[in-house]
Amino acid sequence: MSYFADLPVAQFEGPDSRNPLAFRYYQPERLVLGKPMVEHLRPSVCYWHSFCWPGSDVFGAGTFNRPWHGLPETLESAKGKADEAFTFFEKTGIPYFAFHDVDAISLGTSLREGWSNLDAIADYFAGKMEKTGLKLLWGTANLFSHPRYQAGAATNPDPAVFAYAAGQVRAMLDVTHRLGGGNYVLWGGREGYDTLLNTDMRQELDQLGRFLTLVVEHKHKIGFKGTILLEPKPCEPTKHQYDFDSATVHAFLANYGLLGEVKLNIEVNHATLAGHSFEHEIAYALGHNLLGSIDLNRGDPQNGWDTDQFPADLQETTLVLYRLLQAGGLETGGFNFDAKVRRQSIDAVDMLHGHIGGVDLLARALLNAEQMILDGQLAAFVQSRYAGWKQGMGTDVLAGKLSLNDLADIAAQTPAPQPISGRQEMLENLVQRFV
Amino acid sequence: MSYFADLPVAQFEGPDSRNPLAFRYYQPERLVLGKPMVEHLRPSVCYWHSFCWPGSDVFGAGTFNRPWHGLPETLESAKGKADEAFTFFEKTGIPYFAFHDVDAISLGTSLREGWSNLDAIADYFAGKMEKTGLKLLWGTANLFSHPRYQAGAATNPDPAVFAYAAGQVRAMLDVTHRLGGGNYVLWGGREGYDTLLNTDMRQELDQLGRFLTLVVEHKHKIGFKGTILLEPKPCEPTKHQYDFDSATVHAFLANYGLLGEVKLNIEVNHATLAGHSFEHEIAYALGHNLLGSIDLNRGDPQNGWDTDQFPADLQETTLVLYRLLQAGGLETGGFNFDAKVRRQSIDAVDMLHGHIGGVDLLARALLNAEQMILDGQLAAFVQSRYAGWKQGMGTDVLAGKLSLNDLADIAAQTPAPQPISGRQEMLENLVQRFV
Amino acid sequence: MSYFADLPVAQFEGPDSRNPLAFRYYQPERLVLGKPMVEHLRPSVCYWHSFCWPGSDVFGAGTFNRPWHGLPETLESAKGKADEAFTFFEKTGIPYFAFHDVDAISLGTSLREGWSNLDAIADYFAGKMEKTGLKLLWGTANLFSHPRYQAGAATNPDPAVFAYAAGQVRAMLDVTHRLGGGNYVLWGGREGYDTLLNTDMRQELDQLGRFLTLVVEHKHKIGFKGTILLEPKPCEPTKHQYDFDSATVHAFLANYGLLGEVKLNIEVNHATLAGHSFEHEIAYALGHNLLGSIDLNRGDPQNGWDTDQFPADLQETTLVLYRLLQAGGLETGGFNFDAKVRRQSIDAVDMLHGHIGGVDLLARALLNAEQMILDGQLAAFVQSRYAGWKQGMGTDVLAGKLSLNDLADIAAQTPAPQPISGRQEMLENLVQRFV
Amino acid sequence: MSYFADLPVAQFEGPDSRNPLAFRYYQPERLVLGKPMVEHLRPSVCYWHSFCWPGSDVFGAGTFNRPWHGLPETLESAKGKADEAFTFFEKTGIPYFAFHDVDAISLGTSLREGWSNLDAIADYFAGKMEKTGLKLLWGTANLFSHPRYQAGAATNPDPAVFAYAAGQVRAMLDVTHRLGGGNYVLWGGREGYDTLLNTDMRQELDQLGRFLTLVVEHKHKIGFKGTILLEPKPCEPTKHQYDFDSATVHAFLANYGLLGEVKLNIEVNHATLAGHSFEHEIAYALGHNLLGSIDLNRGDPQNGWDTDQFPADLQETTLVLYRLLQAGGLETGGFNFDAKVRRQSIDAVDMLHGHIGGVDLLARALLNAEQMILDGQLAAFVQSRYAGWKQGMGTDVLAGKLSLNDLADIAAQTPAPQPISGRQEMLENLVQRFV
Repeated sequence: MSYFADLPVAQFEGPDSRNPLAFRYYQPERLVLGKPMVEHLRPSVCYWHSFCWPGSDVFGAGTFNRPWHGLPETLESAKGKADEAFTFFEKTGIPYFAFHDVDAISLGTSLREGWSNLDAIADYFAGKMEKTGLKLLWGTANLFSHPRYQAGAATNPDPAVFAYAAGQVRAMLDVTHRLGGGNYVLWGGREGYDTLLNTDMRQELDQLGRFLTLVVEHKHKIGFKGTILLEPKPCEPTKHQYDFDSATVHAFLANYGLLGEVKLNIEVNHATLAGHSFEHEIAYALGHNLLGSIDLNRGDPQNGWDTDQFPADLQETTLVLYRLLQAGGLETGGFNFDAKVRRQSIDAVDMLHGHIGGVDLLARALLNAEQMILDGQLAAFVQSRYAGWKQGMGTDVLAGKLSLNDLADIAAQTPAPQPISGRQEMLENLVQRFV
Repeated sequence: MSYFADLPVAQFEGPDSRNPLAFRYYQPERLVLGKPMVEHLRPSVCYWHSFCWPGSDVFGAGTFNRPWHGLPETLESAKGKADEAFTFFEKTGIPYFAFHDVDAISLGTSLREGWSNLDAIADYFAGKMEKTGLKLLWGTANLFSHPRYQAGAATNPDPAVFAYAAGQVRAMLDVTHRLGGGNYVLWGGREGYDTLLNTDMRQELDQLGRFLTLVVEHKHKIGFKGTILLEPKPCEPTKHQYDFDSATVHAFLANYGLLGEVKLNIEVNHATLAGHSFEHEIAYALGHNLLGSIDLNRGDPQNGWDTDQFPADLQETTLVLYRLLQAGGLETGGFNFDAKVRRQSIDAVDMLHGHIGGVDLLARALLNAEQMILDGQLAAFVQSRYAGWKQGMGTDVLAGKLSLNDLADIAAQTPAPQPISGRQEMLENLVQRFV
Repeated sequence: MSYFADLPVAQFEGPDSRNPLAFRYYQPERLVLGKPMVEHLRPSVCYWHSFCWPGSDVFGAGTFNRPWHGLPETLESAKGKADEAFTFFEKTGIPYFAFHDVDAISLGTSLREGWSNLDAIADYFAGKMEKTGLKLLWGTANLFSHPRYQAGAATNPDPAVFAYAAGQVRAMLDVTHRLGGGNYVLWGGREGYDTLLNTDMRQELDQLGRFLTLVVEHKHKIGFKGTILLEPKPCEPTKHQYDFDSATVHAFLANYGLLGEVKLNIEVNHATLAGHSFEHEIAYALGHNLLGSIDLNRGDPQNGWDTDQFPADLQETTLVLYRLLQAGGLETGGFNFDAKVRRQSIDAVDMLHGHIGGVDLLARALLNAEQMILDGQLAAFVQSRYAGWKQGMGTDVLAGKLSLNDLADIAAQTPAPQPISGRQEMLENLVQRFV
Repeated sequence: MSYFADLPVAQFEGPDSRNPLAFRYYQPERLVLGKPMVEHLRPSVCYWHSFCWPGSDVFGAGTFNRPWHGLPETLESAKGKADEAFTFFEKTGIPYFAFHDVDAISLGTSLREGWSNLDAIADYFAGKMEKTGLKLLWGTANLFSHPRYQAGAATNPDPAVFAYAAGQVRAMLDVTHRLGGGNYVLWGGREGYDTLLNTDMRQELDQLGRFLTLVVEHKHKIGFKGTILLEPKPCEPTKHQYDFDSATVHAFLANYGLLGEVKLNIEVNHATLAGHSFEHEIAYALGHNLLGSIDLNRGDPQNGWDTDQFPADLQETTLVLYRLLQAGGLETGGFNFDAKVRRQSIDAVDMLHGHIGGVDLLARALLNAEQMILDGQLAAFVQSRYAGWKQGMGTDVLAGKLSLNDLADIAAQTPAPQPISGRQEMLENLVQRFV
């Protein structure tokens, strides 16, 4: 009998429901600006936090004791874990999932063994996906947990590690393609340094640029239509990671000719660790056509590490959804919950609470954002604020028709410009109307 | 009589000197790896903190009461201030200085008045520079203090402010050229946002890209041979500035076709506010051929704003100098002290203590770095760590001769790579030998 | 004519109002758990940010140009400013205010002149308060802006500065008493250090303990029934302030025998600068009977200085109100908006937007908290979680009836305790129902 | 053969030695201000990081593969590990060590089994200590790793967990006493909260106060002469720990009547995580007679978690040693290296590099501090800065002879005090002379 047998399938019951295991806002088929909610959001459960992590932290052992933990590493045990995972996915009402190669099955002690194991479990996943209708938001290879990657995968000083990583990514990209995944993600957890003293940064970046180029070439070769995504994070586990934030990855992609081929998977928790608001990272990515997908898990405002908590900030999420709707929404991406229940939340039902709360907050934010779009005041304010750049001298400047001397002359002949209020408080109050 | 009349001219007295107003390490003409110390360092005093700032902070009035504060804003008072400044520069033994247009003289109430005032005081500076031999490390225009720039200069929603800023920069770039300045710096103190709610980020970046292009074009037009520098800073005064850190500026320059034309002025305090070590920012800039010049003032590790203190970390400065020497050193740049004495350090002698301590620590770091270069162990370790990439498969990978499939095949046919110690503790101990 | 003549008096229009200058939630007389909203909240406008601060920051001049700025420092100009302030207070519908001595009028160049000026303007305030019904939440003396306080007031190395501060506080405490103020606040903006190198910390704390004791003694002597409050802040303007956070002040009060006499004025922005959540600081203060009053202004999550913004986090404010209602609410304290409009918000109407938004969010949070209290689920969960401590061995332990040996023996004879879920996700979802 | 057989015993070779496995400064018997260096420092190796931690982190498996890892949990394997540990201790030349109960041996599945195991290994330790002369700086019980402590030990909502913890501490305190330990440390790694939503903070603090009282009573009962120490840390693993920093623990001890009975074990890394400099925490503790012992491991300035690195900041360590020497030094405490080699430092020699570097930096700092004491300038400056408080009105104020009114009168009759320079830059330069 499934570990989750006693749990209900989460259902929509409306905003007034007091049932803690029901949705109050999430209705997948409800139309939002003419498109079903689920197509806007494409929400996703991650495999690793719910089915692999044992509830350990740096200072303590696992607390979870799930029945599938600690079994021998066989195909059978991997299938058993998958059975539980897919059962749970269905209870949550969330239609997508995401996984690393090593989440699904042990990769054994050699590349060939890993490939073989991965193929076998991929077949099993394929069957379950067909049966349940669940879809793969993205796949990824774990290039950071095994000791061989202690000094990085693509950025390792040892080319043999680079090659090993290539072998692992090739297999997982193929599997992602086979399972119809929407995206393939690379998180460079060890692509950084612990100390600059032993590091040749440019050398390592050249390696990373090459690696990513190989992945892009392979994607095209196999006809994968999903998006290749990098996931920025400033640090942890290393002292400093090369994919620090959106802008840093932007520079990297520009430097290695990968713009247009690679986009970003932006995580709330990683944004705040990098000293940015989540909204900033989204605005930067949208402004540069770099946004691919989103990991909606938050950090703790007072803690300097990745806490990977379910979202709880309705206002922030609303503003991000508003930006997304304005920009036309996600394409192949979605909203993945790279989130884990707290180490003290040891029961099966806690997993359900976490996911229901997360997707419901996301749905509510979407509905709020829809109202902001329909209201139109915020957009109108911003548009009018920059109106001067859509006419006259403003247009000429941006078109490159005026030199520094021209502009100096113009300015000297015009009355000095006067400051205009930015109306921040009024706009902040306006937002409160929608949350 | 000068405010500084009682102060001695700082002299080198050697490491054992107990004279607090003497240099223990700074000997401008001492050869370091064959080049005079002063040519390596090109140290610079900034005009603003020592001669314009009154010792105020957000919670308190100015404490300094220098004789040149509070005088009517005339050419005479500007000259008087310049007399004091140049007297002080000579006492410090530091051969370069840097200034904003508004530091030198009031710009009055119109662009034309500003141009005229600036021209007049530039003539006076020219005379003093000729007489004293002091040189201009860089010039810059203040595009952030006047209320007209409250919403940015180049990134202002009002094109008229953009034009006004163009007028100001044109004049100051011309003056910098006339005074033989080594560089022209743009710090975008208001080129950012206070709230995303009223901001079109991409629009503003397009404006900023255009502005910088105009500056570069003007530089070439007038034949200025110095370097155009952007100065990264993540925030303060705005919530978020567009020139967040080196990598962000890198992305910006790439996006607007300005690589090769514009470099970076990296400040210690700005690096740490952005969540990086100073060494990281330097390594990033050197690795991408972006390093122009350095502001050596530090922040406080526990304070989240720009404290602009004189440097006090010999080890950090040593490691930066080591990187610089390895990379061939600065070209047009130098080490500017964008540093201010504490608000409680109200006497003339405090200014001298600050500058002597700063330049002496810098000189000592240079001598340490020279020893590290001569020792060679650190460089040899790093080189050997990446040796695998200079031969065989490593070379082929970087040359693009192998596909993902090729590498997967190779890896599958080779024994799995084994981890190698990064020797961080040994290297950290090695560094202690030189500080 | 008043600067604010064109502004309406803010009125309650209900949640559906689209009028940006109306309240949607704030109804002073609405009963919340049987007590009028206004008595729960006692909201307050601060004098300094709205009527003294010119819109300057560290990098720029004032942008506000209010008509009362820059006038000669006379009693007449002070009265004129007060006229504007009280007019504005009435427009906001907020019934309390707070001020420093120097906000109301210049203190001139001697203590006697300051006393005389303060007396005169206090009379004028008294008349306006009688006429308008406005009340004083708290008074305070500014012991940080004048250069004499550069090295602290009570903690100054010079006892003469301590005495001067005593003279200033005596006068302002008397005035606060005369105006019927509910509290007297001491914020130790310079009671800290810029460097430990020149500081004798214990000596300075002894001075501060003495100073506070003198204030408490004086309070009793004059029969002031309000509360003496310290306001924790970790740093800024100094590198480190002695009133770092609630717990640090708690230790200080315990050390100098001031518990029971002095409570805390907790500010959101100061809490977060100290590395705590606002909710934590409130919980700590309530748990130790230390909470006096609250400054509701928030900081920016990404900025490391005091931004003093109007509140915008409904969830956080709701949770704080919930704790307050549970604990019986504030006594002499209230919710002061030590908040300023952004430097770009230069119009009169921006001031009104800020205050309306702030008080409306506060009112909404109160209504949310009322629902949480009525719902009772959260309180019941917490109570049941600790139920073991209200019976049997739990009670005996807390009563001191069992030794370490006793407990060891008991534990050895009982089955090892099993972990119980903390249900964090369920509780977080529950909170979402009320915001 | 020992894992460490190939490593040399570290020897003093003097500052010019280029031998990376020799001491350049550490000479245990060298007299510093008349006392042997080793008695000043009492340096200590920790058992856990070097002999229990496998080199894992949140994102990756252990990298170390020490021969004693992964063995069956028997007394024999515990003895084998102890043999290796003591061999290593002797190679480092460091005379003290520290350990948790669970570091030495598995505690099995019941309290009784744990007691029995601990007793057995304690006997073995006693024998090795006698043979080698190694001494125990402190002992401690691990009340945070086992799942039963997920919600705290003393602060657990379940009194049975409190009792279990009592059983564990009783045993380890007895063992510490038996082994002649200098101190007994309690680090409350789970004594905090993950969310305030399910937490009664005051209830938990009352439990913690009781627990600590029981420990103190037991100490006296068994005649343990060492010091009971709490170790402040602001967070990690929990969101917020109750022993946030020195001042918070100070308040806690005052509140539960434990001042004089309990002191602090201050860790560099914990100080900086709490937003303080290391020097601040030491100054606070010394100023309040709270300093017990020191953990010298540092954090990374850019990382928001406990990195537990060996010290590398000579200047900071020098200033702390200077303060310590001034205050008379440590009593039962010492300098423990709660430090681990980096996860990439996988070889036996890396462990030796780490410890040699740490103790050598500490020794060098001590020698620097000795010079600062002998020089006397810094102390003289501070003393003269507060001279006004040792005479006349200053003395009367501190003696409580003057009221607020008295002081106001005095101040009004005296010329207003004038600011005096704090000479921060001069003092910072002075410090550079000694590092």
